Parts: sequence; C-alpha cells; structure tokens
Amino acid sequence: MRHRVETARVARLATVGVDGHPHLVPVCFAVDGEVVYSAVDHKPKRTIRLRRIANIEATEHACLLVDAYGEDWSTLWWVRLDGTGRVVADPAETARAVALLVAKYEQYARRPPTGPVLAIDVTRWNGWTAATELQAGGSHDG
Amino acid sequence: MRHRVETARVARLATVGVDGHPHLVPVCFAVDGEVVYSAVDHKPKRTIRLRRIANIEATEHACLLVDAYGEDWSTLWWVRLDGTGRVVADPAETARAVALLVAKYEQYARRPPTGPVLAIDVTRWNGWTAATELQAGGSHDG
Repeated sequence: MRHRVETARVARLATVGVDGHPHLVPVCFAVDGEVVYSAVDHKPKRTIRLRRIANIEATEHACLLVDAYGEDWSTLWWVRLDGTGRVVADPAETARAVALLVAKYEQYARRPPTGPVLAIDVTRWNGWTAATELQAGGSHDG
Repeated sequence: MRHRVETARVARLATVGVDGHPHLVPVCFAVDGEVVYSAVDHKPKRTIRLRRIANIEATEHACLLVDAYGEDWSTLWWVRLDGTGRVVADPAETARAVALLVAKYEQYARRPPTGPVLAIDVTRWNGWTAATELQAGGSHDG
C-alpha cells in the first residue's frame, strides 16, 4: 500500500470549504513517513488565493486518493489517506519538502516549485483492491 | 471540456460527511446533459452502507474531477464539476442511468451494476489546462 502511494505520480486532493463544499484538484506529491507534501508550482501573479489553501486554513480536513484505472477491472486498486492539512510555515520544512519533490519529479528538478507548500499529516491509510473484493464478495468504499 | 469529461473512463468523486470530513473514491460514470451518473457495482453482501452514499444523503455536496496525468506537464488538464448528489429513487431514471453506463463500459455490458445509482446534478463546470495557464502566467485551482 505504502509502495503504491510513494511511487504514484499523481494523487487527487480533496479539501472542504467553510461552506461545507468539497473541492478537488490533482496534485504531484512526495511522501515523508506520515506526511504528504505537495506544492503550488509558482507564486500566482494574480493575487488570488488558491481554494485548496483557503480550505485547509479554514477547515484543516484533507483526503488524498491514489488509484490506478485500467480496462481490466479485476486489477483496480486505490489507497486513500485521511489527514489534517496545513500550509508549511517553517522554512526548514519547506526546503525539505521541496527537496523531496525535486528528487521525485525531474520536472521539478528543472524548475523547483516556489509557491506555498501543503503538508497533510496522515491519520489513516485505507486501501482497496478489486482482487481482494472479489474474494470477499462485496462492495466497499471505506 | 464536455468532450473530455464524457470520454474519460474514470473520475474521482468527493463527498463530505456530517462530521465535515471529505471522502474520495474513483468512479466510472456516464454524463447525461447536466447529470452525472455512477453506480455501485453490486449490492454489498455485508450490510455496510457505503460512505459516499451516506455522505450524499447527509450533506448532498459532491465534486467530481476528471483529469489526465502525463510526464509532459505542459499537456496537463482537468475539469471539475461541482454539484448536488442524490441517490436515484425513480426506477425509470435508474434504468436509464444503467443503460448509459452499460453503453459506455463494456465491462458493465457483461455484468450490469445492480447496486444503488448516484446522480450528481451539476451546478458548475470548471476547467483548467496547463497550456492556458502558461499563457496567462499564473497558478489557479478555481
């Protein structure tokens, strides 16, 4: 489960606004133990605040999904990480997170992200595979 | 934007629980105008209620993300649909939704879904492409 997450190239991040509405965005990410880091690529030139950041500052809740789709549905799987999100404030932690992202993505190596770094402190890992479900004989979404 | 969504094979569905926590699951889906349908493949043998269904019955809010990841980040794009979720109660609508799913997925043609059907009544389409962002010169997550 951990290996599948750590080697995945993309995840989908869900946050929740103060109005209770969910928000989704795809993210590149790096895992450091029980923390998942993602970054805003570049400082927006416009003064908009990104929804994912506003949501995490407001409600903290975050959910990250890693999955692989394929036409052979017996091979489907997903891993879901529930956690608490925060915008990284400590410069040392920011530098460490950016280093992890740069090490994982050569696209970042060429142009390191300069925007805010998001950390998700994971509180729960949850995994599912179609193969296991076929054995157990039921649907499940945790 | 609509074409990209309609032809995509998988989307990620975010819902929110009464506790305010987001929940994510990958879904196969079919689009019918401003409604997106997905189904639970088979009636669970266990008497668990799926979180996505409990969440939608409790808070209604739903967000669906369709995106394509690739290593050439200049080609990245996503489309996000915000809407209101409901469990389809009308048998005629259920039949119509299942027919749409069966027409799109030959996996469903072989074994049509028999579980509950979820409808998301879309209230907002939102799209992003890296190519456009590169022109505009800013980060954006809507």
